[in-house]
Amino acid sequence: MFSEKVVNNLSKSSWIRAMFEEGAKLAQKYGAENVYDFSLGNPYAEPPEEVIESLKKHVLSDEKGLHRYMNNAGYQEVRERIAKSLQNESGIELSAANIVMTVGAAGGLNVTLKALLNPEDEVIVFAPYFVEYNFYADNHGGKTVVLPPDTSTFEPDLSALEERITKKTKVLIINTPNNPTGVIYTEKTLKEIAKIIERKEKEYDTTIFVISDQPYSEIRYDEVKLPSILSIFNNAIVVNSFSKSLGLAGERIGYIAASSRIKNIDVLMNALSFCNRTLGFVNAPGLFQKVVGDALTAKVDVEAYKKRRDFLYENLTRIGFECVKPQGAFYLFPKALIDDDVEFVKRAMKYNLLLVPGSGFGCPGYFRISYCVKFDRIKNSIPAFEKLAKEFK
Amino acid sequence: MFSEKVVNNLSKSSWIRAMFEEGAKLAQKYGAENVYDFSLGNPYAEPPEEVIESLKKHVLSDEKGLHRYMNNAGYQEVRERIAKSLQNESGIELSAANIVMTVGAAGGLNVTLKALLNPEDEVIVFAPYFVEYNFYADNHGGKTVVLPPDTSTFEPDLSALEERITKKTKVLIINTPNNPTGVIYTEKTLKEIAKIIERKEKEYDTTIFVISDQPYSEIRYDEVKLPSILSIFNNAIVVNSFSKSLGLAGERIGYIAASSRIKNIDVLMNALSFCNRTLGFVNAPGLFQKVVGDALTAKVDVEAYKKRRDFLYENLTRIGFECVKPQGAFYLFPKALIDDDVEFVKRAMKYNLLLVPGSGFGCPGYFRISYCVKFDRIKNSIPAFEKLAKEFK
Repeated sequence: MFSEKVVNNLSKSSWIRAMFEEGAKLAQKYGAENVYDFSLGNPYAEPPEEVIESLKKHVLSDEKGLHRYMNNAGYQEVRERIAKSLQNESGIELSAANIVMTVGAAGGLNVTLKALLNPEDEVIVFAPYFVEYNFYADNHGGKTVVLPPDTSTFEPDLSALEERITKKTKVLIINTPNNPTGVIYTEKTLKEIAKIIERKEKEYDTTIFVISDQPYSEIRYDEVKLPSILSIFNNAIVVNSFSKSLGLAGERIGYIAASSRIKNIDVLMNALSFCNRTLGFVNAPGLFQKVVGDALTAKVDVEAYKKRRDFLYENLTRIGFECVKPQGAFYLFPKALIDDDVEFVKRAMKYNLLLVPGSGFGCPGYFRISYCVKFDRIKNSIPAFEKLAKEFK
Repeated sequence: MFSEKVVNNLSKSSWIRAMFEEGAKLAQKYGAENVYDFSLGNPYAEPPEEVIESLKKHVLSDEKGLHRYMNNAGYQEVRERIAKSLQNESGIELSAANIVMTVGAAGGLNVTLKALLNPEDEVIVFAPYFVEYNFYADNHGGKTVVLPPDTSTFEPDLSALEERITKKTKVLIINTPNNPTGVIYTEKTLKEIAKIIERKEKEYDTTIFVISDQPYSEIRYDEVKLPSILSIFNNAIVVNSFSKSLGLAGERIGYIAASSRIKNIDVLMNALSFCNRTLGFVNAPGLFQKVVGDALTAKVDVEAYKKRRDFLYENLTRIGFECVKPQGAFYLFPKALIDDDVEFVKRAMKYNLLLVPGSGFGCPGYFRISYCVKFDRIKNSIPAFEKLAKEFK
């Protein structure tokens, strides 16, 4: 009766959302304060003052036409500000013409893949990765090729990349700071990737686009810098969102920035606007375009996230968990205490701990903790982690 | 390099948007007040007071978590209010579980088609129609079947419908009040359609869904009622938006309401939520969900639109244009003064009149006037229409 593919996918659907819903049930049963829900990347943090002030300014003004359609790509002045900021960061010349405002990064990724993919084109991702990429690629006729994780560092496996690029490879998606590991890929690694891609583009006479999905770009610790994707890759497309950096996840606001170094960039920008329109986004929400334009240099309290990372990392390693120390995002990705991560996560639920199995990120044997929650939840969860660890000793 | 299909579609792309952009150029050249841009359905009207008050209330409150993710289907309390209102209107029992909040009607249509269509499934539409439906169906593997217009009344052609339903027909899209004609399909016509569909469902042992795309449902004149789609059709799915009724086109807020009479409705609702998420919408913009929930009974000043309709209709018929008098929406769809509507629209541009050819709606020989503009523009345009008509006498 309905789409068979969609109905089949319902059962394979998001672990993260499944845990989120399980959490709601447990919270009802035991009280929210007794459930340690670490399942969803739904920041507890309120938007920074600049966002709130901008919102008030626009809503209280008698600005006419604030809620009308604008160009499908978004407000010119907001796109100009974003272009200027990316240009300063990357040294690559960019203007408003290189930017399309989008319904978050998820919207931006769908629009970009639709504009790029021909049937059976391959989209390479490094595990562990955000598995929704599979659906996004499939929506537009693409096939996801998942490269196995290097669990020693969670950096991309370069030899795997070199081996798996084919004539059909159209896109490489990178996600740094990474969800679920919190790892920031080094400049050296990214430059190696660029070399491999350039070599393969020559070998096959193809163009391979690097899509950088970087909603966590502003959530970095220990003064680690984010290497500039736009300067490292020739065919770079940055997809970003203000969900995490400005605490606006529910408002669905982000952008696509495509490098001026891409050949026929005008055609690509038209294609992106067209896809933004015809996939049904039409344009990114208008009021919040203006707000992020005003608050472009603001960000949520990263120190507060760092405090959470440090506390959790110290306690979990003390308890005996193995874990790469994250440099960004708000996730920890420790090794499960048994091989079967799904079973491990189920056993954790006994202690009201809601975790997401690594299998949900193409990386079995690990689990994700999303620590964008109130500090008390983290502090109070430590005895539960201790009991859980004891069970496997 | 890019998606071939998308690049090919760029050239066939929206007439409406093309005219909109042409209008911007002419406005720069001659001054906005001297260009009679009737191309886009971008309401001039500011949202009603209830919307502005609700926006202020939420933005000035210290409501925590206002901008966070919520359930992919949207806020429970907003969905409940919409369900209750539709239940009152239709007599069909509905709850929050029947509603998914969406990124406008364009988003809602893409989500619905994705959830329903299997490869090569057919989507029937009555010309004249909003040609973006072609892209929406194609996005999800469907094929649009366009039934020719009955230009005497612009009501659906029932015998054409009866003939063209096949085993592959999955969806009929109806759009009433209609864009571009402003016609409201009568209850009698809709009930005839329902009979034909039920007969064909039995004949082929299939299920055919009626999607009612009804963003103009609240813009009606002369006390004409809108027949209730949910009560007339068994497999009814209403897709609506607040773009026109609350003047919120740029904010991208609407909903899907699927009838509780649909078999396996639970599976369908899960599929709709899943598609909302994986197509990259994730959820409808959060703040505006709350706002439309608060302002559900409000609407823009319909009398102001009626004044425009009456003035334009009277003047154009006086000048000699043939036109069905619209009962809703904010469009007129007169007959062009030559067969070639594209040529006619080009000639109109000489008088700074921006119109959209009927070919852009699958109905050559006609043209669309979008009168959701300031009254002065309409008033001042009449001499231009007179000169244009003179040219063809």
